[in-house]
Amino acid sequence: MRFVVIGGDAAGMSAASRAKRNDRTLEVVVLEQTNDVSYSACGMPYNIADPARPVEDLVVRRAEVFRKEQNIDLRLGHRAQTLDRAERTVSGTTVGGEPFQVDYDKLLIATGARAIRLTAPGADLPGVMTLKSLEDARRIKDYLNRHPVRSVLIVGMGYIGLEMAEAFHERGVKVELVKRRPSTLPWAPEGMADLVKSELEAKGARLRFATRVSGITEDDGCLKVTFDSGDQTVVDMILVAVGIMPNSEIAADAGLELGPSRAIAVDRSLRTTDPDIFAAGDCADAFNVITGQRVWVPLALRANRAGWAVADNVTGKSVELPGIVGTAVFKVFDLQVARTGLSLDEAQGAGFAPVNTYVKTRSRAHAHPGNQTLHVALVADRGSGRLLGAQMVGKEGVAHRIDAVAVALHAGMTVAEFTQCDMAYAPPFSPVWDPLLTAGNQLLKALG
Amino acid sequence: MRFVVIGGDAAGMSAASRAKRNDRTLEVVVLEQTNDVSYSACGMPYNIADPARPVEDLVVRRAEVFRKEQNIDLRLGHRAQTLDRAERTVSGTTVGGEPFQVDYDKLLIATGARAIRLTAPGADLPGVMTLKSLEDARRIKDYLNRHPVRSVLIVGMGYIGLEMAEAFHERGVKVELVKRRPSTLPWAPEGMADLVKSELEAKGARLRFATRVSGITEDDGCLKVTFDSGDQTVVDMILVAVGIMPNSEIAADAGLELGPSRAIAVDRSLRTTDPDIFAAGDCADAFNVITGQRVWVPLALRANRAGWAVADNVTGKSVELPGIVGTAVFKVFDLQVARTGLSLDEAQGAGFAPVNTYVKTRSRAHAHPGNQTLHVALVADRGSGRLLGAQMVGKEGVAHRIDAVAVALHAGMTVAEFTQCDMAYAPPFSPVWDPLLTAGNQLLKALG
Repeated sequence: MRFVVIGGDAAGMSAASRAKRNDRTLEVVVLEQTNDVSYSACGMPYNIADPARPVEDLVVRRAEVFRKEQNIDLRLGHRAQTLDRAERTVSGTTVGGEPFQVDYDKLLIATGARAIRLTAPGADLPGVMTLKSLEDARRIKDYLNRHPVRSVLIVGMGYIGLEMAEAFHERGVKVELVKRRPSTLPWAPEGMADLVKSELEAKGARLRFATRVSGITEDDGCLKVTFDSGDQTVVDMILVAVGIMPNSEIAADAGLELGPSRAIAVDRSLRTTDPDIFAAGDCADAFNVITGQRVWVPLALRANRAGWAVADNVTGKSVELPGIVGTAVFKVFDLQVARTGLSLDEAQGAGFAPVNTYVKTRSRAHAHPGNQTLHVALVADRGSGRLLGAQMVGKEGVAHRIDAVAVALHAGMTVAEFTQCDMAYAPPFSPVWDPLLTAGNQLLKALG
Repeated sequence: MRFVVIGGDAAGMSAASRAKRNDRTLEVVVLEQTNDVSYSACGMPYNIADPARPVEDLVVRRAEVFRKEQNIDLRLGHRAQTLDRAERTVSGTTVGGEPFQVDYDKLLIATGARAIRLTAPGADLPGVMTLKSLEDARRIKDYLNRHPVRSVLIVGMGYIGLEMAEAFHERGVKVELVKRRPSTLPWAPEGMADLVKSELEAKGARLRFATRVSGITEDDGCLKVTFDSGDQTVVDMILVAVGIMPNSEIAADAGLELGPSRAIAVDRSLRTTDPDIFAAGDCADAFNVITGQRVWVPLALRANRAGWAVADNVTGKSVELPGIVGTAVFKVFDLQVARTGLSLDEAQGAGFAPVNTYVKTRSRAHAHPGNQTLHVALVADRGSGRLLGAQMVGKEGVAHRIDAVAVALHAGMTVAEFTQCDMAYAPPFSPVWDPLLTAGNQLLKALG
């Protein structure tokens, strides 16, 4: 029995490793188009921030280890291009231009996603970069090392854009950011978005909202950028961080069903519409536990978890994943920003009658030194009283606190049930009523 | 209608305030034996640590505010001594020695708890202190200000003892600690207890285990302490922090039922065995949500929450509290220590067939700077696969992470369900698999 995996990052290598651990007799072939496997993509901004750290620090396990210690047939530089479901083959070309073809019994498509590029004239000039793969990280780091980069324009303010703003700042590069939408956090109350804006500006970043890059030209070794608004700026480098799109073409071409954002549609066992073909990682969708709807939220934990579940299902177990609630956290300089579940707008869109509350509380007990303001918003459904989501911003106590709400969402708790939870209290860590409970108590009042 | 409250701290004042907010026509009388109401008792060690901070900083709301803004009949210096349930009266004596008597329609007993004292000879010498009330905090702070205290012996290593070790250390006082039991954290795996021990020793504290104070004598302005083991030490001050006991005598004398540790037994509506008499705060017990058994875990959040529930029930609502899971966190110098639910021993004692796991993981992502080791233990029931408890120690990421487990315990989740929760990940805050999930995955294997 041969299990073929297309793509050797989080989902693919998790699946390959676990499948081998589950069943040593299984033949496992991994086709990876680059020369990198198993690296911490989310760590790239922090690595780029530090000129002294080699990019290779981000590699969690080297190709040789998978091959020698796990007996995985890992083929680097193999770009899979065509999937023949009738013949059960995957074929493609190596970096050397050689064609190849592999038979499979079970197949996992873990092709990931790619960065969306700008379409404006000049978007392909040298110095205009994206950050999705380890190769991208090397390219950015090399560029920073080889050029006197004093200024950068970051296009987009998603978490990659914001984390890279900090990374460039750390390296002494002056940062400008531009976003097509009018707010830093479109899914959070305005007060929270304003906090992020103020934090970026306090660190010297120049922000532009509600405009797009309409053209880029080279200008005396620099990049001259023109915006829709007519504004112009001149920078040494541009990072395009306007989002990613799933690498689902090989699946679509083979007639497999796609879900939201053209991600590959999978059921709770990670099977595509072909029961012998699985998909996992950034190329695949998931069920939202709260709405039951298909969503595409490409994040690392889901990729790893889905990889494991595929391995189990390929090796004779029967595993179903309930899905995700959309929990995420990121750091913007001194701020922690987190969300889980639905925003007010998303809840409305999913057919709930949402009610929300937005409280600003202290991060520590009454009169305790070092207190910070913590912003907490909760969303609930008026009819059922069910908790639907949370958003949080603050200088401390955000990153792990959000998980308490995530667990409550998985459990389908009402706000009333959530506010009865026995949470930890000590003066250095929270007020007696944890900020989540204070927000929950407010929301209970709003629910009436 | 008159609502009388005995005791003006967390539970008592929460109940009095909320009752008035619920119903302005209600007559609310609070009898408080000291001159202090509504203060942050848990903040006392941190206040004592800083000679520049007045103890009065800990007062959350002053007596005058309750009286003038809320029209609460707050009587300070009133020590309630006798409860006559047939006549519905509370009587006692004021600090001035005047007898008083008050009629009630509904009564809340919120008399709190008191520090257990040593019985060894010399335990009443000046310089031997306890810390439970704000008056105790003033006494300790005055003593530190008026005497050249260079060394202290702390008897007990509960969270008060450990927090005070840090407070004394901050003030330049050399700390010795002694404990009758052999471990710093009897409810946690030995590795975690050892971490706490090492942290205390690294900060210069001298520790003694498995021995008791057998006598104290005054010796040239110092206190000479003899231990059961025969050891002796000489210190300038002694803090006795060997636990607290509920002030339940007034209830017991009136024939109300007592629960574990002689705390006043209450049902989920906070009613004692007399339906017109409620009890809340450190003098009352609670139901453990996991075992359904009565427990006495005197902590601040439960006191506040119970106070509110009493107020609601007194003013015509019908509120029941599900109970507690025993979540707690404290700081020991640079360590955060937290627990929720049952320890392995407690689970065994409650009739479960417990299985546990103990993992040491990183606090941040692969290769992220600033990584710390995080110790996580989880306990589950073999038969049902249900999650029963967690213990955690580490330098970061403990305090709020424990709440995710607390919520799971309230929801009655199995380990399998818990490990499917979509938790937050970003490199500065956790590995891709949150330490709780890593521990959960290990525990799943142990459950088979």
